[in-house]
Amino acid sequence: MNLTTAPSSQNAPVILTGDRPTGPLHLGHFVGSLRNRVAYQNTYKQFIMLADAQALTDNMDDTGKVHRNVVEVALDYLAVGIDPQQSTIFIQSQIPELAELTFYYLNLVTVARLERNPTVKEEIRLRGFERDIPAGFLTYPASQAADITAFKASLVPVGEDQIPMIEQTNEIVRRFNRLAGRDILIEAKALVPEIGRLPGIDGKAKMSKSLGNTINLGATSDEIRAAVKKVYTDPLHLKVEEPGHLEGNVAFLYLDAFDTDQAGLTEMKAHYVRGGLGDSIVKARLEACLQELLAPIRLRRQELEKDRGYILDLLKKGTEQAREVAAQTMAEVKAALGLTYF
Amino acid sequence: MNLTTAPSSQNAPVILTGDRPTGPLHLGHFVGSLRNRVAYQNTYKQFIMLADAQALTDNMDDTGKVHRNVVEVALDYLAVGIDPQQSTIFIQSQIPELAELTFYYLNLVTVARLERNPTVKEEIRLRGFERDIPAGFLTYPASQAADITAFKASLVPVGEDQIPMIEQTNEIVRRFNRLAGRDILIEAKALVPEIGRLPGIDGKAKMSKSLGNTINLGATSDEIRAAVKKVYTDPLHLKVEEPGHLEGNVAFLYLDAFDTDQAGLTEMKAHYVRGGLGDSIVKARLEACLQELLAPIRLRRQELEKDRGYILDLLKKGTEQAREVAAQTMAEVKAALGLTYF
Repeated sequence: MNLTTAPSSQNAPVILTGDRPTGPLHLGHFVGSLRNRVAYQNTYKQFIMLADAQALTDNMDDTGKVHRNVVEVALDYLAVGIDPQQSTIFIQSQIPELAELTFYYLNLVTVARLERNPTVKEEIRLRGFERDIPAGFLTYPASQAADITAFKASLVPVGEDQIPMIEQTNEIVRRFNRLAGRDILIEAKALVPEIGRLPGIDGKAKMSKSLGNTINLGATSDEIRAAVKKVYTDPLHLKVEEPGHLEGNVAFLYLDAFDTDQAGLTEMKAHYVRGGLGDSIVKARLEACLQELLAPIRLRRQELEKDRGYILDLLKKGTEQAREVAAQTMAEVKAALGLTYF
Repeated sequence: MNLTTAPSSQNAPVILTGDRPTGPLHLGHFVGSLRNRVAYQNTYKQFIMLADAQALTDNMDDTGKVHRNVVEVALDYLAVGIDPQQSTIFIQSQIPELAELTFYYLNLVTVARLERNPTVKEEIRLRGFERDIPAGFLTYPASQAADITAFKASLVPVGEDQIPMIEQTNEIVRRFNRLAGRDILIEAKALVPEIGRLPGIDGKAKMSKSLGNTINLGATSDEIRAAVKKVYTDPLHLKVEEPGHLEGNVAFLYLDAFDTDQAGLTEMKAHYVRGGLGDSIVKARLEACLQELLAPIRLRRQELEKDRGYILDLLKKGTEQAREVAAQTMAEVKAALGLTYF
């Protein structure tokens, strides 16, 4: 089986993307990244990283979860249409060069700079680390810089909130190249998706496993139905005949993201706003959309799940390919640092 | 050529020791560590690390110096009698597992704990880093923990001031073993030499290249003579007939460390203290001692210097041996963290 990328993308710009394998992927991932990756793989050379090593920075007490989810997330990838012949899917921890690059990049960034990184600050706050921040968590921008630069990625798809991470990577790149006296590493650009973050079914800004407000890509038909019933709409829209509001109405936000009949949707919105349209009708439309979207994904996932050996084989080959690229960069970095002897 | 350790030391306790290759080794190193290593290698399984990667933490602007000094320091090792058939001499940067272990250990130590480490605090002060501490400098205790544990060293020869580093290593070891549910890593003990630090020729507490108060192991006969002339004695001892003081008198401190005729030295001290003995006589005795000590070292060094290919070959073999051991530990660590897939 030929797992190398399509010939057309050999000289294409490189994308580095990936996920922390800490749980099943959901509709938020689908809208925020997976859908784009399926498109990107036709035009770019795309590396997709299962960031198990990074996931450990705040999961050292549950390493089993990270291990299990590596294959689960890979299944999600393939189920949504990421093609291992076009995209290189690999496991971070199996490429020691990524840890090694991190080790050297730590010399190129100050503690104060890491502490000022807004993304790191926010993540520290979200996790309630306060003063007990694991060093590996504070230093993970250096690890991200390693991941990005190892593959000489020039594009990194991220949300707005992750832009400071790319800036930090580029600072490291510039500092390294200045020391090396030549451009060994390349700077990366953030590729921010047009459609922003998908809210949770409860209306919270973020769909997140820990908030329990997700619809997983592998959700059964019943799970989808149950979730749609709980979708947050307009709390003031108590009677069908009264006007409803669209702002913050998750049912309509989801329809915006998934309804293939946008003209029909526009009509439905007008009806809802002027009154006379009940939430149940809106939700029925949403449920139909989601069932249609997720049924083939679930089916492919179930098929693929039967042969875990195939998935592992595929990850092994992807990892080997990715490692070759990372090892080449590592060799260049080491040579520039005078760490070549034999 | 058989470069493996002597059979007798196969089950012997493991020592991890080494130097940052940032300059030629001097008498301070000889007294503080080298002399002991020559003795240890008969009883212990000794790994000696040329810590080029660690040296970079504060030498990113002069990587060439680090590179050059790797072979220079190796020459010093062999010249003083470290036997590559008994001790495994290796280059840190050529063992990626050491960086990889560091990467994971960073998750086992908090930023606050690193900031509290007295050795790190002092080194930061000495280097004037203040708020611009490179992250790699703050995190180097994790790197040291990696170096020590990779070889399952139970003994680490260090000065008093480095004891907090060993304690930090052992905290990481205990935390890792607790997570793993079994004793994969082993705790290390500091092996503090009986004879403490050798002062500089100027009387400063530490002999150090940056203070310009050293006598290098490769010093020529003339350099030794010139250095002994500058050795700090008793500034109050202005006339030969007056009593001299031994406290802080570097000439006598050195004689304590190097004179093989300690009975004769005791007599000389008594004479000096009661008056009637000039510094020039003391210094003549010291010079004779040092010339005798350093002449064979210099000669061996000059011989060895002629064949750098041999030195590199030896470092390559030592590094291969060391890497095998480190790779084994890394595999155990990864398995415990659930990072084994294929």
